[in-house]
Amino acid sequence: MQNPSASKTTIGILGAGQLGMMLAQAGRKLEMGFRFLDPATEIAARGLGEHVCAAYEDIDALEEFSRGLAAITYEFENVPLESVRWLAQRVPLHPQPDALKEAQDRLFEKTFFRGVGIPVPEFSAFFFRDEYDDAVGKIGLPAVLKTRRFGYDGKGQRVIRTVAEANTAFKELNGMPLFLERFVPFDRELSIIAVRSLEGECRFYPLVENHHREGILRLSIAPAPGLTDQLQSEAEQHARCVMEKLNYVGVLAIEFFVRGGMLYANEMAPRVHNSGHWTIEGAETSQFENHLRAVTGMELGSTVAKGHSAMVNIIGDFQDWSEARNTSNVFVHDYGKKPRAGRKLGHVTLCGETAHAVEAMLDRLGIPQ
Amino acid sequence: MQNPSASKTTIGILGAGQLGMMLAQAGRKLEMGFRFLDPATEIAARGLGEHVCAAYEDIDALEEFSRGLAAITYEFENVPLESVRWLAQRVPLHPQPDALKEAQDRLFEKTFFRGVGIPVPEFSAFFFRDEYDDAVGKIGLPAVLKTRRFGYDGKGQRVIRTVAEANTAFKELNGMPLFLERFVPFDRELSIIAVRSLEGECRFYPLVENHHREGILRLSIAPAPGLTDQLQSEAEQHARCVMEKLNYVGVLAIEFFVRGGMLYANEMAPRVHNSGHWTIEGAETSQFENHLRAVTGMELGSTVAKGHSAMVNIIGDFQDWSEARNTSNVFVHDYGKKPRAGRKLGHVTLCGETAHAVEAMLDRLGIPQ
Repeated sequence: MQNPSASKTTIGILGAGQLGMMLAQAGRKLEMGFRFLDPATEIAARGLGEHVCAAYEDIDALEEFSRGLAAITYEFENVPLESVRWLAQRVPLHPQPDALKEAQDRLFEKTFFRGVGIPVPEFSAFFFRDEYDDAVGKIGLPAVLKTRRFGYDGKGQRVIRTVAEANTAFKELNGMPLFLERFVPFDRELSIIAVRSLEGECRFYPLVENHHREGILRLSIAPAPGLTDQLQSEAEQHARCVMEKLNYVGVLAIEFFVRGGMLYANEMAPRVHNSGHWTIEGAETSQFENHLRAVTGMELGSTVAKGHSAMVNIIGDFQDWSEARNTSNVFVHDYGKKPRAGRKLGHVTLCGETAHAVEAMLDRLGIPQ
Repeated sequence: MQNPSASKTTIGILGAGQLGMMLAQAGRKLEMGFRFLDPATEIAARGLGEHVCAAYEDIDALEEFSRGLAAITYEFENVPLESVRWLAQRVPLHPQPDALKEAQDRLFEKTFFRGVGIPVPEFSAFFFRDEYDDAVGKIGLPAVLKTRRFGYDGKGQRVIRTVAEANTAFKELNGMPLFLERFVPFDRELSIIAVRSLEGECRFYPLVENHHREGILRLSIAPAPGLTDQLQSEAEQHARCVMEKLNYVGVLAIEFFVRGGMLYANEMAPRVHNSGHWTIEGAETSQFENHLRAVTGMELGSTVAKGHSAMVNIIGDFQDWSEARNTSNVFVHDYGKKPRAGRKLGHVTLCGETAHAVEAMLDRLGIPQ
């Protein structure tokens, strides 16, 4: 008798952190198997598939990883582009390497947004010190000096309010490729989770409002309070435009600053996103399931929200959520990681029929909004 | 009262594997403190210094890591060059970034060796398929198709004996930057561990003979059996030439193929090297201590061998070395890592007064030579 698991579709995921973990959890009901490539020995996705433990650049490991896979995707954008291109020549891989290339570099990303007509804060690239001084003059203060690559959770950026701070920030970051961006004193930050299928169908979750502290996402409220059809439609148009231009397949997240009712694109992530975790319990189909559906050529599921949700990240230490665990409509996700300052250890989703009900739950749990 | 450890010289090491561990162990007697940057949570160097657990590209982590350091070095060559350059602008860092750049890319390395007059196997770079066919014609078969980057322990290379194998190998590696090298049917492989101080003094350990299996170093014999003054002097000249050209400070390892009494450079490592582990017990000053002396501007220690040594790597599983532990002149080093196929878990050094005595010890332990 044939082993039924041998004929199961196996999906490869680059990275085996909590996003890989939640992708694999969503894949169970689609009867998919998983294989992860991750150099870390301790992985959040343990037990959810085979783990090839090797460097992303190790071609022999890439070969072992890719063998017999139906599709490949990635859970984070700092995978080496060369490895992703190598894999894409051999196995269907989404989102496609050129989309990853745009998203890996904050300057490429900003230039791309501007090129397709999406408003962005004014920015300026430079290489030498005197060009930096020119950029500061042109952009004006306050501004934000940013590294082009490897920025996440507020890393690799410095807010500049004075010429003295401009000098200090330059000294601190000089040596890495940089650019300067106008500081937008935004009213709030919203993000959209969008998904595009292999056939080109686009679906969108409602915009969510995000609250950060020390550069790290703490709380997402879905849908965003006071969300208008006009704002939702504007965000959808931007996301559709990006996905069509890049021939994108899978889930894409775009973060926007809102200022005077206008959306400015801040950055995009070519993957499932922390601000979409609420969709596991709060939407008809989760971002994870829809990403897997897209990259394997299936039809997309509904992105309609079931009532209202809030997602709270558990950062640094796993406080006692045991009480919350026993509350109905409260869903605790534990990534099984060792506590460490600034580390995302899990998240909690609160669901309610109304925005007011969710607010009351946040209040009861003592979570500032 | 002032804390005496506060005034201790602290050295930063990029990477906290077994090489970082042995550097820090050697640094104890020099009264140095250590700080490691390594994204892995489980590190061989645990307990030997502060561990900044972050990506090598994370500029905020680089800043935290570099604060107050007297010098920085690295234990492996696949650190991002950009990060190393950023650090070198702020803290004395050796070996200097340009040396790292040459060593990170097998094609740069080969071109560099050839440029300074060191014999290398014939090689040819190419980008497109038809150029590859030309390269195969020019280099002839057998040949070795290699990836330019991230090759270690025999990874990222394919031996080609026939045109059919040339096609298969190309299919397997195509997409990564590659080059083709003539296959040298060498008599044996030797390596030299060299060190250059900040003042430019060069010292050399005796050449050692290396035995590999499945691309991984299994055994080093020091000094190499039948080593002649002429061969030693030739290898020293090559190493001196490389170090002077690169204004190199620290330990450098060069691996050579020997064919008909002639040395062909295979590759270099800009760091302490597995084939130099025997120096801990087998030489007057270990490669680890001399590396630290060099990168902190101290005078070098003697590189003279104390008798004869053999170093055996413990790979994949830690066999029962408890008996060996109790044998005099047998030194077992356990890196404290979890067993995994192909993983270096430790090494054993055997010391004796004569080459014959060391051979007899290897025989007794059942280690094939």
